[in-house]
Amino acid sequence: MITLQVKTSVKQGLVNITTQVQRVIRESGVAQGVCTLYVPHTTAAITINESADPSVKEDVITGLKKLVPEDPSYRHLEGNSHAHIQSILVGNSVQVFVEDGQLKLGTWQGIFFCEFDGPRTRDLWVKVLSA
Amino acid sequence: MITLQVKTSVKQGLVNITTQVQRVIRESGVAQGVCTLYVPHTTAAITINESADPSVKEDVITGLKKLVPEDPSYRHLEGNSHAHIQSILVGNSVQVFVEDGQLKLGTWQGIFFCEFDGPRTRDLWVKVLSA
Amino acid sequence: MITLQVKTSVKQGLVNITTQVQRVIRESGVAQGVCTLYVPHTTAAITINESADPSVKEDVITGLKKLVPEDPSYRHLEGNSHAHIQSILVGNSVQVFVEDGQLKLGTWQGIFFCEFDGPRTRDLWVKVLSA
Repeated sequence: MITLQVKTSVKQGLVNITTQVQRVIRESGVAQGVCTLYVPHTTAAITINESADPSVKEDVITGLKKLVPEDPSYRHLEGNSHAHIQSILVGNSVQVFVEDGQLKLGTWQGIFFCEFDGPRTRDLWVKVLSA
Repeated sequence: MITLQVKTSVKQGLVNITTQVQRVIRESGVAQGVCTLYVPHTTAAITINESADPSVKEDVITGLKKLVPEDPSYRHLEGNSHAHIQSILVGNSVQVFVEDGQLKLGTWQGIFFCEFDGPRTRDLWVKVLSA
Repeated sequence: MITLQVKTSVKQGLVNITTQVQRVIRESGVAQGVCTLYVPHTTAAITINESADPSVKEDVITGLKKLVPEDPSYRHLEGNSHAHIQSILVGNSVQVFVEDGQLKLGTWQGIFFCEFDGPRTRDLWVKVLSA
């Protein structure tokens, strides 16, 4: 297992981590396989979506805030239950394919770390299984 | 890695792809393992849910439209940010189990390709890992 | 493949199953790998989130009920389309890492079975792949 660090700079935002993941996969030496990316936090998530237009990242945060707004009526005393729920909806792990020793994504795809209660320094766990 | 093609016929809808996945798994020759199904697009997703009553498929689309409606205030100029967000909520990959060389699903489950910005011809990537 | 049973006691609620999963992983004898947890139902899901404060579990249910309320206008005649949609949003499988023969979670994380149409006795399928 490899641990990557992701520094987030805002309360809620997406960070493109495709290049970091690409490097880990290349260095793993696996030619064909499946790579699992795992977020060991409870107010952060990971997703794969469009990386071409950076405004998609902003729209995703706008949409998730509308969907699960901050709400003082939640019982969890830290006041960040919306961030827990957003994390559950997006999910805390993704799988990507490894082909010929390289990360294989769709044409418009990038991998995004999703911060929902930052800014913080976060960990991302990576494991590559050989096919 | 195997690539399946899924032809979608509507703007937003679910397509049952269970039979196609079953065939790929059988032909992979893997007896026991885990199969990852990966959508290389950013306005489409994949999910596993009830296949017995086809009205569930329609209710899922109704629910997702209510949850994340089209909205001209999004910044992404293509006007399909709702489709990107719906895709992130549902997720772009699933895992299914392979037992005795066959796809193993729950009694009422089917595998559904989720089109959120169609109609289009879409790809689905499949990889089977042996246990 | 191992099958665990989860008894749920309410209509909608999260059940912490971390200890049961830990046991299966230990007994699998796998030292380093990836464990897939798969829910073979269509009105239940699985997620990983905070286990320290039990009020998070309640807030998650409160949030999901607000997001996808019961609604008689859905077409599926069983009247539980909201449970199907909630299950799709949360997802029916998760991956966790196995390190030194043990389940490896983040500090605050636990694994939760999500019942959206209970109470029932549910199955959870588990498979551990060696790295």
